[in-house]
Amino acid sequence: MQFHIHQTHHQVADFKKIFSDLKQDMQNASEDKKLGVHIYPELYLTGYPLQDLCLQKPFINSYQKYLEDLNQFTKKLKGDFLFLIGGLEYELTESGLPLKIKNVIFQVEPGKELKAIYTKRLLPNYDIFDEQKYFTQGEESCVINYQDHKLALLICEDMWSSSFHNIDPVKDLFETCKGEKISAVINLSASPYYIDKPAKRSQRAQFIAKLFHCPFIYCNRVGSEDEIIFDGASFITNEKEHLLTCHAWKADSQSLEIPQSDSPIDEELLPSPPNTWEELFSARIDSDKLSLNELSETTCHEIINALAFGVQEYAQKSGFKKFTIALSGGMDSALVLSIVALSLKEGQSLEAIYMPSQFSSPLSYDLSYELCQNLKINLRTLPIKFLHSSSKNLFESTYDEAFEGLTDENIQSRLRGMLLYTRSNQIGSMVVNTSNKSELAVGYSTQYGDSVGAISLLGDLYKSQVYQLANYINSKFNKLIPEGIITRPPSAELREDQKDTDSLPPYERLDSILEGLLTYRYTKNDLIKMGFETEEVNRVFDLYRKSEFKRYQFCPILKISSKSFGFGYRIPMSKASQFYLDE
Amino acid sequence: MQFHIHQTHHQVADFKKIFSDLKQDMQNASEDKKLGVHIYPELYLTGYPLQDLCLQKPFINSYQKYLEDLNQFTKKLKGDFLFLIGGLEYELTESGLPLKIKNVIFQVEPGKELKAIYTKRLLPNYDIFDEQKYFTQGEESCVINYQDHKLALLICEDMWSSSFHNIDPVKDLFETCKGEKISAVINLSASPYYIDKPAKRSQRAQFIAKLFHCPFIYCNRVGSEDEIIFDGASFITNEKEHLLTCHAWKADSQSLEIPQSDSPIDEELLPSPPNTWEELFSARIDSDKLSLNELSETTCHEIINALAFGVQEYAQKSGFKKFTIALSGGMDSALVLSIVALSLKEGQSLEAIYMPSQFSSPLSYDLSYELCQNLKINLRTLPIKFLHSSSKNLFESTYDEAFEGLTDENIQSRLRGMLLYTRSNQIGSMVVNTSNKSELAVGYSTQYGDSVGAISLLGDLYKSQVYQLANYINSKFNKLIPEGIITRPPSAELREDQKDTDSLPPYERLDSILEGLLTYRYTKNDLIKMGFETEEVNRVFDLYRKSEFKRYQFCPILKISSKSFGFGYRIPMSKASQFYLDE
Repeated sequence: MQFHIHQTHHQVADFKKIFSDLKQDMQNASEDKKLGVHIYPELYLTGYPLQDLCLQKPFINSYQKYLEDLNQFTKKLKGDFLFLIGGLEYELTESGLPLKIKNVIFQVEPGKELKAIYTKRLLPNYDIFDEQKYFTQGEESCVINYQDHKLALLICEDMWSSSFHNIDPVKDLFETCKGEKISAVINLSASPYYIDKPAKRSQRAQFIAKLFHCPFIYCNRVGSEDEIIFDGASFITNEKEHLLTCHAWKADSQSLEIPQSDSPIDEELLPSPPNTWEELFSARIDSDKLSLNELSETTCHEIINALAFGVQEYAQKSGFKKFTIALSGGMDSALVLSIVALSLKEGQSLEAIYMPSQFSSPLSYDLSYELCQNLKINLRTLPIKFLHSSSKNLFESTYDEAFEGLTDENIQSRLRGMLLYTRSNQIGSMVVNTSNKSELAVGYSTQYGDSVGAISLLGDLYKSQVYQLANYINSKFNKLIPEGIITRPPSAELREDQKDTDSLPPYERLDSILEGLLTYRYTKNDLIKMGFETEEVNRVFDLYRKSEFKRYQFCPILKISSKSFGFGYRIPMSKASQFYLDE
Repeated sequence: MQFHIHQTHHQVADFKKIFSDLKQDMQNASEDKKLGVHIYPELYLTGYPLQDLCLQKPFINSYQKYLEDLNQFTKKLKGDFLFLIGGLEYELTESGLPLKIKNVIFQVEPGKELKAIYTKRLLPNYDIFDEQKYFTQGEESCVINYQDHKLALLICEDMWSSSFHNIDPVKDLFETCKGEKISAVINLSASPYYIDKPAKRSQRAQFIAKLFHCPFIYCNRVGSEDEIIFDGASFITNEKEHLLTCHAWKADSQSLEIPQSDSPIDEELLPSPPNTWEELFSARIDSDKLSLNELSETTCHEIINALAFGVQEYAQKSGFKKFTIALSGGMDSALVLSIVALSLKEGQSLEAIYMPSQFSSPLSYDLSYELCQNLKINLRTLPIKFLHSSSKNLFESTYDEAFEGLTDENIQSRLRGMLLYTRSNQIGSMVVNTSNKSELAVGYSTQYGDSVGAISLLGDLYKSQVYQLANYINSKFNKLIPEGIITRPPSAELREDQKDTDSLPPYERLDSILEGLLTYRYTKNDLIKMGFETEEVNRVFDLYRKSEFKRYQFCPILKISSKSFGFGYRIPMSKASQFYLDE
């Protein structure tokens, strides 16, 4: 039988397009006799994640109308095929508010009523996931018969089991299928990308393929919702290798013939590979070198695609066709500019602004200029020297207290934020933030200054990873980024001869200490035992716990690791961390 | 028997103080022969809410050490009393990471091991609550025997039941207690304040007191954690009236003698008053007047206390003793200044800044001056005219495009933000934000401009409620706020003769439309049917859905309603709302 993966790319709640595209697919299947099983992602009908949207009466009313219209449509449809589609099933109160919401698979057969046949059982509720907040858990496994084939169904997280969940849907499904011949295990997913995730998915899918003696079909959505990026990359695999792989980062449809199974499932359950809290949020530190594990070339490639996709999605949804990026002459802004430049589509434009103060070195301009030449991007200079001294004069003529140091540094950064947003307002362009994860973690930025932006590209990448990505880009694109930018010592240039290392440990050690801290795995003592210096560990922990308020008001960060600052990072600001981090 | 309520006020994770205060209480009970039952709030031992803190190894290690130390202490203790204390019970992996976390009641009797006797059953998981993310649900009701008394135990949410929960701990407890004589139902709580909450708690407690034929003991914590304010206001009630009421907004200990019950519990369960999603997030609109329900005097009093308490808590935890507030001559900043002034403690100082542009009317200064005179607060003026024109000149000499309108308005607002934070940096003061909920909902503010601040006092109050609070303050404090501020038409003064009503409906209608929208209850059509004008409803919905990005980067808002912008408001930014709100 033919299995058709529909790896879709739609906007959340865009019911009009979602339902009309689906009806078109059904119409085509009916007319072209595309027999077999058509598979759509988890929550195809609504998009994902929905958060509170799924509680709102206008959302529910609209969805219910489209769903009923689809029902009428499929009842009149003719043909010999089966559609499996992710969607929501509501149980409502008399006044139309939600009592129960289920994340289900709808079965559509021509001439029949739409029917929810399976409810997601394992509702992820860690990190960015809040599904138990909204959805009611399914109680039963589901195996369907279709044209002499037996198909076992799962939704996304169901394929995982874990020591911190109290149910194991794969095990339950296995019990249900014991002794049966299953043609395929089908998983409808809406699974976000992060580093190493594609490999983990395949590994787990192949374990399940082995368990059920049949191919595993994985259908994922494409799209970027605020900080969460869905890569698609759907596949069909047997226990050893992919039989089919869809593109990442764009809609794709592919089909494969899968024969009926001739091998009944064993009586014995294979031991399941571990999927623990520790594994999920493992710290990626090389404990010999005391630095982060290096990113592979494949991973660098994936990350750059993920960031380019994410920034484009955000721009498109927000209606921006122009981008404005502030260049400092340093590494972060150069990488951001390069990635956005590489992502540009027809009809879009990108410009750079350089805003020197009295402390900016001539080299910073030269390097910014060279980068913009390489990328063919317009660069303008807005010097802040005069506004800076005018602001100081205003204060000196009003207040008795003098200021210098941090106060004076912050003025420069905030004037740049103001000018950047004035330009953004003037031409309707999107400001892309240039902070990195290391800076965010230690508060090495100015609130409402260099921390401004509509979205952050590098906020989930440590500084040492920023360098790795820059080197990767240079290796693929003929030294796009001037070597001077990569080799010069990092500096905020907010005072004379400032270097990042004046106040921070070298980035490779800083990043490893942060990774240990942010993945919840290590205490200070654990890190000191690994070989980090006590004084450095203390300094990093202190900087981290003092800067929670800066992270709170930061812009959305494209998430590319299992633990990023953002929606899944939930640490109270109110200084609780001063009490216990010293352990 | 004596029942002692310990309504405590500690910082989250401040284990040193939390455990030493508890040991001191036990020592006192032992020496002073304070017999009977001592009751502490839910999660007294850790504080609440913890969010991801409870997953972190340093937090867990530290907590476990203190817990074991307490255990050793109580084993050596002598006396005749029972302590019931809220805390966490961990089940850990071999490497010390959490496998299961339970929100429990520890029972402490002198000479015995610490013992977790009850696990919270109803884990709230709506709005700001994420307890199912962290905690494992308890399975059983708990009734304990102590000196011929039978005591029934609950933790916080357990006392509620709801159509959207699938368990009902009160009903289960009732089944367990049927035919027994219960002396008291004891509830350990960490329950946030919001408008009408105190009355709802009493009502529900009295229903349970009636059900169990005995007093209901409600022990709540005091504290403000970021946006969430715990009011304390613990009490003991019978089915009709409070037998004891603790102070709100501060630590308090009170005791009451409760006799053994002589009345066995009935066989029949009383019908439970409804607690539905709809009731929880009901819209407080007067549908005749098409305006929000008026706040009662009691509620105004509560809100002002809540805001004063919340801002002080935030300042204390962040180490601020100074406050800086920008005055515009308008209503919001005047109310914020008044509330902070009324909250000031010894050793603290408060100052105001007035930052006029070319569009500021002389009246704005006069009213600001008068207010500061009334409050005896230092006011300084930082005119932005020159910085404003310098910024414009810089743009005109660099870019071809001219600008005016919104771009020009935003510059003024952002220059003010920069100056305000420069002052904050200069003297180490806390900037209190002055935006209100109506502005936030329609995006009527400048990102990084007037929206800056460490914390927002009015972000959960509609503009019409801001006026009610101002009038309440004036009625109690001899016209503290100049009448001219209350009566002048609201204006942002960012262009010639600007009025809020140029771009927004009158606040009373705006606020009601927003309340209908934000509580998820109403669609556009529902509101139009209620009598609101189609054009106004459309305009408000449009402004709302375009401004999600501004709310995302906003500062924490002290929560005083059941639905505030902030952690419990989870709407994707990515423009999903453009699709369905038209229903």
